[in-house]
Amino acid sequence: MAKRIRVGVNGFGTIGKRVADAVARQPDLELIGVAKTRPSFEAEDAIRRGYPLYVSGGGDRAAFASAGIATAGTLDDLLSDVDVIVDAAPDKVGRENAALYRAKGIRAIFQGGEKADVAQASFNAMANYAVGHDKQSLRVVSCNTTGLARAAALIDRSWGVESWDATIVRRAADPAESKKGPINGILPTFQMPSHHGPDVRTVLQDLPITTLAVVVPTTLMHVHVNRVRLRHPPANAAEIARTLAASPRFRLFRGWERVEGTPQVMEFARDRGLGHNDVMENVLWEEGIGLHGADLHFFQAIHQESIVVPENVDAIRSMFSLAPNAEASMAITDRALGLLVEGKSIPAR
Amino acid sequence: MAKRIRVGVNGFGTIGKRVADAVARQPDLELIGVAKTRPSFEAEDAIRRGYPLYVSGGGDRAAFASAGIATAGTLDDLLSDVDVIVDAAPDKVGRENAALYRAKGIRAIFQGGEKADVAQASFNAMANYAVGHDKQSLRVVSCNTTGLARAAALIDRSWGVESWDATIVRRAADPAESKKGPINGILPTFQMPSHHGPDVRTVLQDLPITTLAVVVPTTLMHVHVNRVRLRHPPANAAEIARTLAASPRFRLFRGWERVEGTPQVMEFARDRGLGHNDVMENVLWEEGIGLHGADLHFFQAIHQESIVVPENVDAIRSMFSLAPNAEASMAITDRALGLLVEGKSIPAR
Amino acid sequence: MAKRIRVGVNGFGTIGKRVADAVARQPDLELIGVAKTRPSFEAEDAIRRGYPLYVSGGGDRAAFASAGIATAGTLDDLLSDVDVIVDAAPDKVGRENAALYRAKGIRAIFQGGEKADVAQASFNAMANYAVGHDKQSLRVVSCNTTGLARAAALIDRSWGVESWDATIVRRAADPAESKKGPINGILPTFQMPSHHGPDVRTVLQDLPITTLAVVVPTTLMHVHVNRVRLRHPPANAAEIARTLAASPRFRLFRGWERVEGTPQVMEFARDRGLGHNDVMENVLWEEGIGLHGADLHFFQAIHQESIVVPENVDAIRSMFSLAPNAEASMAITDRALGLLVEGKSIPAR
Amino acid sequence: MAKRIRVGVNGFGTIGKRVADAVARQPDLELIGVAKTRPSFEAEDAIRRGYPLYVSGGGDRAAFASAGIATAGTLDDLLSDVDVIVDAAPDKVGRENAALYRAKGIRAIFQGGEKADVAQASFNAMANYAVGHDKQSLRVVSCNTTGLARAAALIDRSWGVESWDATIVRRAADPAESKKGPINGILPTFQMPSHHGPDVRTVLQDLPITTLAVVVPTTLMHVHVNRVRLRHPPANAAEIARTLAASPRFRLFRGWERVEGTPQVMEFARDRGLGHNDVMENVLWEEGIGLHGADLHFFQAIHQESIVVPENVDAIRSMFSLAPNAEASMAITDRALGLLVEGKSIPAR
Repeated sequence: MAKRIRVGVNGFGTIGKRVADAVARQPDLELIGVAKTRPSFEAEDAIRRGYPLYVSGGGDRAAFASAGIATAGTLDDLLSDVDVIVDAAPDKVGRENAALYRAKGIRAIFQGGEKADVAQASFNAMANYAVGHDKQSLRVVSCNTTGLARAAALIDRSWGVESWDATIVRRAADPAESKKGPINGILPTFQMPSHHGPDVRTVLQDLPITTLAVVVPTTLMHVHVNRVRLRHPPANAAEIARTLAASPRFRLFRGWERVEGTPQVMEFARDRGLGHNDVMENVLWEEGIGLHGADLHFFQAIHQESIVVPENVDAIRSMFSLAPNAEASMAITDRALGLLVEGKSIPAR
Repeated sequence: MAKRIRVGVNGFGTIGKRVADAVARQPDLELIGVAKTRPSFEAEDAIRRGYPLYVSGGGDRAAFASAGIATAGTLDDLLSDVDVIVDAAPDKVGRENAALYRAKGIRAIFQGGEKADVAQASFNAMANYAVGHDKQSLRVVSCNTTGLARAAALIDRSWGVESWDATIVRRAADPAESKKGPINGILPTFQMPSHHGPDVRTVLQDLPITTLAVVVPTTLMHVHVNRVRLRHPPANAAEIARTLAASPRFRLFRGWERVEGTPQVMEFARDRGLGHNDVMENVLWEEGIGLHGADLHFFQAIHQESIVVPENVDAIRSMFSLAPNAEASMAITDRALGLLVEGKSIPAR
Repeated sequence: MAKRIRVGVNGFGTIGKRVADAVARQPDLELIGVAKTRPSFEAEDAIRRGYPLYVSGGGDRAAFASAGIATAGTLDDLLSDVDVIVDAAPDKVGRENAALYRAKGIRAIFQGGEKADVAQASFNAMANYAVGHDKQSLRVVSCNTTGLARAAALIDRSWGVESWDATIVRRAADPAESKKGPINGILPTFQMPSHHGPDVRTVLQDLPITTLAVVVPTTLMHVHVNRVRLRHPPANAAEIARTLAASPRFRLFRGWERVEGTPQVMEFARDRGLGHNDVMENVLWEEGIGLHGADLHFFQAIHQESIVVPENVDAIRSMFSLAPNAEASMAITDRALGLLVEGKSIPAR
Repeated sequence: MAKRIRVGVNGFGTIGKRVADAVARQPDLELIGVAKTRPSFEAEDAIRRGYPLYVSGGGDRAAFASAGIATAGTLDDLLSDVDVIVDAAPDKVGRENAALYRAKGIRAIFQGGEKADVAQASFNAMANYAVGHDKQSLRVVSCNTTGLARAAALIDRSWGVESWDATIVRRAADPAESKKGPINGILPTFQMPSHHGPDVRTVLQDLPITTLAVVVPTTLMHVHVNRVRLRHPPANAAEIARTLAASPRFRLFRGWERVEGTPQVMEFARDRGLGHNDVMENVLWEEGIGLHGADLHFFQAIHQESIVVPENVDAIRSMFSLAPNAEASMAITDRALGLLVEGKSIPAR
């Protein structure tokens, strides 16, 4: 077997810990270690999983030591030992880290919390897999953008998108964040249209998409309310449901499954047990797809914590030309992650 | 002064108690009494306000007596003494009551929780005030429909509506309902498009509106995310803001007022102190109105508990021809309710 | 009539705006003005109510002017014109302000968010009314402490308190705070016992009280779960209910009123309409009082936004010897605020 | 190896699916099948896990068939093939099922949602393991009772319990229940004391425990606020922390782990990945244990969905005398479930 690409993950929070797990499962990648600033229950988890733990940022090895957590060195040490670093630092910190990575001459993957110019290109596997070829840096677009880009890439290939309007109903905080609100209320996002539309166009340049957003008091998932005008609409909504269900990284719930909303999607995820009860697919409902002439209406739920995880893996593979195309890379990634891959395929353009 | 119209209110819950208060304040209406099924803190409030209290439905006068609450008779007694009854019974019960009212030969106003055919016509003051003339029964459309109808009537008159798409982000329960959820999660409404669009057309026949809805865990207000294509767009969003701010039953918040969302709208309402901290106006934000060519984007918040209250008053006035037109009726209603009326006017068609 | 005491209020947020309203209604106090740092919808409300508005802290008169809000001067101007200032600045800022007030030689009332040593004494009307006599500064204890102190003073006088254990189930944020969480979860307070017990003893020196606290995702009210061992227990719980119901600043709900918890208490408050839908009384339930031998168990709900408001008024009256005793001051305060006073009395010691 | 006990699970909801998983992992038990009324995403999960699926109650095999879910028979078929059935039907339905099980002459384990007399004895592994010997039916006490019984058994053995007062801060709904509230508010439980105290005494007869409860709007976990007077208190809280940490089915978080409340406990659980992100242990915080003389104060969080799962396994083992004592049974159970067992032991009585 070919030499595996050596990967480090800087940041071991919501995204970092999931990317580390995902990398560790890939046949062609090797997880060299993860970096974290402070000890916490999540640091213990890194140790339990056997991930070498490095101290990043303003962190202090003594703080880890006094908590009984062994560290393997500092971020500098980790950077010296990898081919590529996945930056999963908090928003804005990635930008600061970029200079460090460049100075070390190592390649880097950034997250969508950073502005697009943090990297040479923005990336989404279904939308623009090939862009990563030989790049020194890539930015995986954020959770909402990833969800929109996947759906738009798939639907545009299948039936052509004349226009796309999305209302993004955003979760206000992640499940483990206990300091953010609101507890009771709805907050409109006064950036109109919201940044998500332009962000989708960093990976699908010509998509005529407009987005508006509100924040609501839930922690589980975002929900997108989509209105799409199709160029070449199919005969009925059932055909759309079939195509979506047959695509990788989409999960379609049927009526008899009795999934009323995001609480039951998360229950499904806990039963399925992929790790952290993640849902890395766009979630759709058969009953939540309507077609009226050329007008497609559909809901999709997006698990903000995990949807970008497989995309980070594919971004590495694209950057190092480890797979011939998106479909091949996604199949390797998804099989390793336990996502359903049998019978799934991306519609030809 | 002319003889006042004698009004009864059947049901003294969220809507009924507010309509009773509003009727009691009108110069041309007289509140004869309210009917309620069971004793509760709300029944005490009726007494405190001096409203004769009648026992409705399967209720029992003895239950009130043992709670020390004086009753003036049964619903039958109340019906014998009024010109018109406002039905504010729970959803679906209004339909059962309709036969009773007809048998008694008294006119009736129903709420939007009933289907449109419960009454001879559906009603919204700004949309179709004149429809009530000489009708025996009217139905005031529901809270979301009222909010949409007001905005659509106003915007259509001013700039023409080519198409209107609304996403309705619904509150899951009223503040005093402690048994309904979800506590954490978003529930898509799988009726696609949702019933709100057709319901708006019961008062604005030709409006090309399509609605989709989700339910979110908050109790305060609904929020509408609107996308409207205008026929004759104005020069800029500021002109739209000015027109909305100058219309009765619209409240526009400006940026410096620091109203981030529905929690602060409700705080404003508590400070203003109209009664029950109600907000009977469509609530908009100056920062929440965007115009891009002919495409208008705007958010509006709708207080589900009170927005239909002035409409119930206007419906009575329309039915009994107590005012020459919508603007005149609304001015009387709004002045009596303490809503701002100076300098407010409905744009001419 | 005697000359009225001239009162200023520094801070016009949750507490300040309510204290200003309460002061403005008292026969023996005169509201000279309120001070606020920045324009907002609450500043407009001050103007609407006719309160002269002064600019405090780092505020800027120009910011108000550009919002079209007239200001009467700066905090300095206000301080020059009052006999006493009620400090309702955010927690910790009161301490900074104290030096300013001392330098100006004017008396001051502080809130319970400040430490006890911010003032010469801590104050609660039912617990230690007389302490204010001739003091230059007083601190009204915080919302939870006020609720506990009232109940403990009353119960101790009536039946003697052998020991008092309270679990304080705290609301996580006020209704208008949209940035605080948690949205879903319970947070134990790791200060054990919590500071509330010692704080109660700043007004009831010898009370053997121990408190523990948790934070929960609600905005409406705190709930106290109390376990009290009585020295001289009455015959039954009904006697306790009667005594509490007959005391000023207590509101007892009976079973037939169908008040299941804090959502319905707030609905009662909105119906009652005291202003801001406030509940300045300790709220208890007849069904929520149990007596087993000498062991009293009871729940009480505390409206964190308003419970200290009448206490601020009484503190001024105590400081300036405007009433002969607590009962007299409370009766004046409560009548002016619209709280029930007929037939209410404090049990003799 | 000895013949394994053949186990069926009737009900495949929150408790049933977890008990099925737990049984399937035990070396001395064999999961014969599970019974469910209607198809749903959870039925698919049973199939995915390879559990034969039987149709229970008013269910219809055709409904499963039309959803493409294979069934192995009806509940009757399952009952004919097992040594013992674990009843995980909704509350109250277990009582109806009991007659059926008796008629078939098979042994049964019930859940704590049923009244104590549904079975010959109530059971908790740490409290009264031996009670199950040769019983035909056992009832595993409910989640809150299990949490209290474990802690009380452990603390009583170690230091003697003079008295125990607990305030139970209850989650209002499970994560996948989207119809229950309240969304915003606190509901006192007017059963005073609450039923939990007497229920603990079904497994610890002489424990002097009194409980009170409130319901709060969260879905994750219950939190108990405990006040215990000890007969023979240790020197300090640290000793208590050490003892609890060293006991099976207790998890103690230390300050540096930065677990502020139940949101982070659940995040820990998702990282740990036992299945359904369960936490079958009583959760305590080192910072949340205080000792003042003989008075112990401590918080514990209880995962209502999973805490009774290992107890169901132990109940079977007790009933069939598969292990010599509680410690031995718990060690087998916990090792199979992936709970930490090394170095854990129950203090000698």
